[in-house]
Amino acid sequence: MSTNSDNLHGREAVDLLKSHISTGNARPVLQEIHAALEALLATGTTSTIDLGAIPFGPGDERLLDEVLGKGELSATLDVLGTSHVEETGIPGVWRIDHFDQNGETLSRFVEVTFLPEILKTQRADAEAGLARLAIRLEEHDSRTH
Amino acid sequence: MSTNSDNLHGREAVDLLKSHISTGNARPVLQEIHAALEALLATGTTSTIDLGAIPFGPGDERLLDEVLGKGELSATLDVLGTSHVEETGIPGVWRIDHFDQNGETLSRFVEVTFLPEILKTQRADAEAGLARLAIRLEEHDSRTH
Repeated sequence: MSTNSDNLHGREAVDLLKSHISTGNARPVLQEIHAALEALLATGTTSTIDLGAIPFGPGDERLLDEVLGKGELSATLDVLGTSHVEETGIPGVWRIDHFDQNGETLSRFVEVTFLPEILKTQRADAEAGLARLAIRLEEHDSRTH
Repeated sequence: MSTNSDNLHGREAVDLLKSHISTGNARPVLQEIHAALEALLATGTTSTIDLGAIPFGPGDERLLDEVLGKGELSATLDVLGTSHVEETGIPGVWRIDHFDQNGETLSRFVEVTFLPEILKTQRADAEAGLARLAIRLEEHDSRTH
């Protein structure tokens, strides 16, 4: 019991320590997000910032989350792994994280857009869906008539 | 214990019975969805079908779910209650359900669109967000300098 609790404290302490490891890259990323949101509103230009392409520690992640805050929308997509899409507390600024089938992080993005492309239905999918719906309706009718 | 189990069986039996109550409205709604998806692909016109505006029983709901199937995208919005947004197994066909703060259903919609309006960031919100982000960055800088 006491060992369990000591371990927990140990792990918590490590997590707390880790959460302070920062590269100093959060501040410039936030500046980039600010400029990207200005551009979105001025010209409609959307931006993607790949957090995996720059050194970005847990402390950076923490500062980013603190400044952007939590938003109202959270979405999950299950296609070859899982994608999490969350609007941050700054509308127009989205976090998009992809995980593989084992739950390992594949990529982490900030998107500055009115709407992440990943949430949209692709035209080809809707076309295939229409054909599928017609078949399912025929099947249903042949079962009930 | 046996009473509990009897009750459970009783409740399950009632649920099962209920799930068969249908008004016959699912089939015309599915036909309407098919026509709406055709229109979306042909002209880009989006449609909304209010399931609360027509008699629609649990059996209708079940047939609708069976024919449309489950999709890959599921989103939750928390603004004055909760909204669930799910793409069905027919891409371009979405289910949007709103619940009040007590979890009671407020409305149930089928939307036929490449992208439900509710998922988009509103321009005014992004403008307010930009101003908020600028203030938070100033606050952060004044704390660290």
